[in-house]
Amino acid sequence: MIVVLAGGVGAARFLEGLVQVVPPETIAAIVNTGDDMIFHGLRVSPDIDIVMYTLAGIVDTSQGWGIQNDTTHTLSMLAALGAETWFKLGDRDLAVHIRRTELLRAGWTLSQVTDAFRRALNVGIRMLPMSDDPVATEIATPVGWLHFQNYLVQRRARDEVLGVRFVGIEQARPAPGVLEALSTAEVIVIAPSNPVVSIGTILAVPGVRDAMVASPAPVVAVSPIIAGAPVKGPAAPLMRAAGLEVSARGVAACYRGVIDTLVIDQADVDLADDIRAAGVEVVVTDTLMRGPVEKRRLAEATLAAARHITHRDAGSS
Amino acid sequence: MIVVLAGGVGAARFLEGLVQVVPPETIAAIVNTGDDMIFHGLRVSPDIDIVMYTLAGIVDTSQGWGIQNDTTHTLSMLAALGAETWFKLGDRDLAVHIRRTELLRAGWTLSQVTDAFRRALNVGIRMLPMSDDPVATEIATPVGWLHFQNYLVQRRARDEVLGVRFVGIEQARPAPGVLEALSTAEVIVIAPSNPVVSIGTILAVPGVRDAMVASPAPVVAVSPIIAGAPVKGPAAPLMRAAGLEVSARGVAACYRGVIDTLVIDQADVDLADDIRAAGVEVVVTDTLMRGPVEKRRLAEATLAAARHITHRDAGSS
Repeated sequence: MIVVLAGGVGAARFLEGLVQVVPPETIAAIVNTGDDMIFHGLRVSPDIDIVMYTLAGIVDTSQGWGIQNDTTHTLSMLAALGAETWFKLGDRDLAVHIRRTELLRAGWTLSQVTDAFRRALNVGIRMLPMSDDPVATEIATPVGWLHFQNYLVQRRARDEVLGVRFVGIEQARPAPGVLEALSTAEVIVIAPSNPVVSIGTILAVPGVRDAMVASPAPVVAVSPIIAGAPVKGPAAPLMRAAGLEVSARGVAACYRGVIDTLVIDQADVDLADDIRAAGVEVVVTDTLMRGPVEKRRLAEATLAAARHITHRDAGSS
Repeated sequence: MIVVLAGGVGAARFLEGLVQVVPPETIAAIVNTGDDMIFHGLRVSPDIDIVMYTLAGIVDTSQGWGIQNDTTHTLSMLAALGAETWFKLGDRDLAVHIRRTELLRAGWTLSQVTDAFRRALNVGIRMLPMSDDPVATEIATPVGWLHFQNYLVQRRARDEVLGVRFVGIEQARPAPGVLEALSTAEVIVIAPSNPVVSIGTILAVPGVRDAMVASPAPVVAVSPIIAGAPVKGPAAPLMRAAGLEVSARGVAACYRGVIDTLVIDQADVDLADDIRAAGVEVVVTDTLMRGPVEKRRLAEATLAAARHITHRDAGSS
């Protein structure tokens, strides 16, 4: 089993490469749910849906989220009825949130709902929410604490970031299968997602970090930062607020003690020695996933890095 | 104030005529909620929505329900996720149910939600649900008790009707304003709706029938049966199951003791003497509402019948 810690768009694209390289049924993604929010009384799980839509081949590739060619008739009518509609939800997308909410209210867990949906949409990989318990990523700003979606989508990440907290994280239990997947994995990959609010949230679920450290599997992360900037999303201010340099070196510092190897981009080759000096192995490759070929190559390079660790460990034992 | 007891399509069309004749703000519709049902976890109020969409000018006129030119992308995706989708809900229509459900869960009453929505959609008449408490119209059939929507929509009214019950009716309180509207009305109209499961449900709400009988206002009903058949819907088997003849005479029998006058179609002129003999005044006119002109004329004839009663009463006092 290859276990992948996943946020949204970057992770989904990485997984698109991975399913070209190994059978989907040998992959389990543990997905961040700290960005989840209730809109119009409906439970929206952005990262789960991004991964699911992407692997189902129905994602809006221009945005990286939502469903391709989706319409927004429902949202227009919700606006006419006085609802706030700054979070764009397409008509087909809304069906997922409507059904998820219905099933959760009927007593299903988010894990059960997610598994049913990914099967219905012919997604071959297992998808595990990091937790079935509610966790809310909140951002401290000069105007106060904001839910991550209010910070990112409603206010377009324009507020200064003073801090991050994961509300509910102490009480959150890893979802069924999460710890088992980590302890029995052959390889653990941290996808190129936001290290603070996507991966950081998963690692903060009690038991997850310990399970990764205790796991015999090699742990390889892919840096989401290339040449000092994230490919997508608000990683820069969030890393700075967490005291991290916005660089592959900062990513390595963030994951130190958890990962064996960091996959970094050619553009960051100058940082390799520093990162190695800090005790993290480095693999340098092209990490920008422009299309299917680059996605496959990044997955291959990541698995090769993991095999290298496994062989080295086997050789040294 | 003109108060109109209303079911779905027939009542909505009658109200379209009435708003041509008197200012909308002088009209209050008391609307059946016994057909309400939960679909996909969302509260659907078919009769309220039919009246609201019709008076907002956005109803799908070919069906009589739903929103014109609505799409069904959300429903298609719900089906892909395994939901039952025999009840057709368009994308714009779903917004109403999503927002209604959200507001009800937030503690609003159905009355408050309905008033907010009709104002948002520029509907000038007051719309009062018959009750804010849950009532479910159920039909006894050879396969057991069925919710009205299961009987009518899912099973296309193909089951023999053995009886009707209104689950929850004993505990249902008239919604705020219902009894006040009836007791202070100048005219009370029973719209041409199903006498058993639309009007019958409203009349069964404790206090409503008594308030109508006690009201000084003339009460005029418009027969939904023309020449022995309903214009639309399953009135025939439901009237038979209630022991009523499927005719204007049966409608008069159903409303005896509540109405002063029944407006019947030219086609039923032969029944006028029988109905009068049973103690109900009769006005004969064209009651089939093909277009705006017929709707207006029916409203005028109905109000004229009411004025006639008022003047007669004034003369005899």
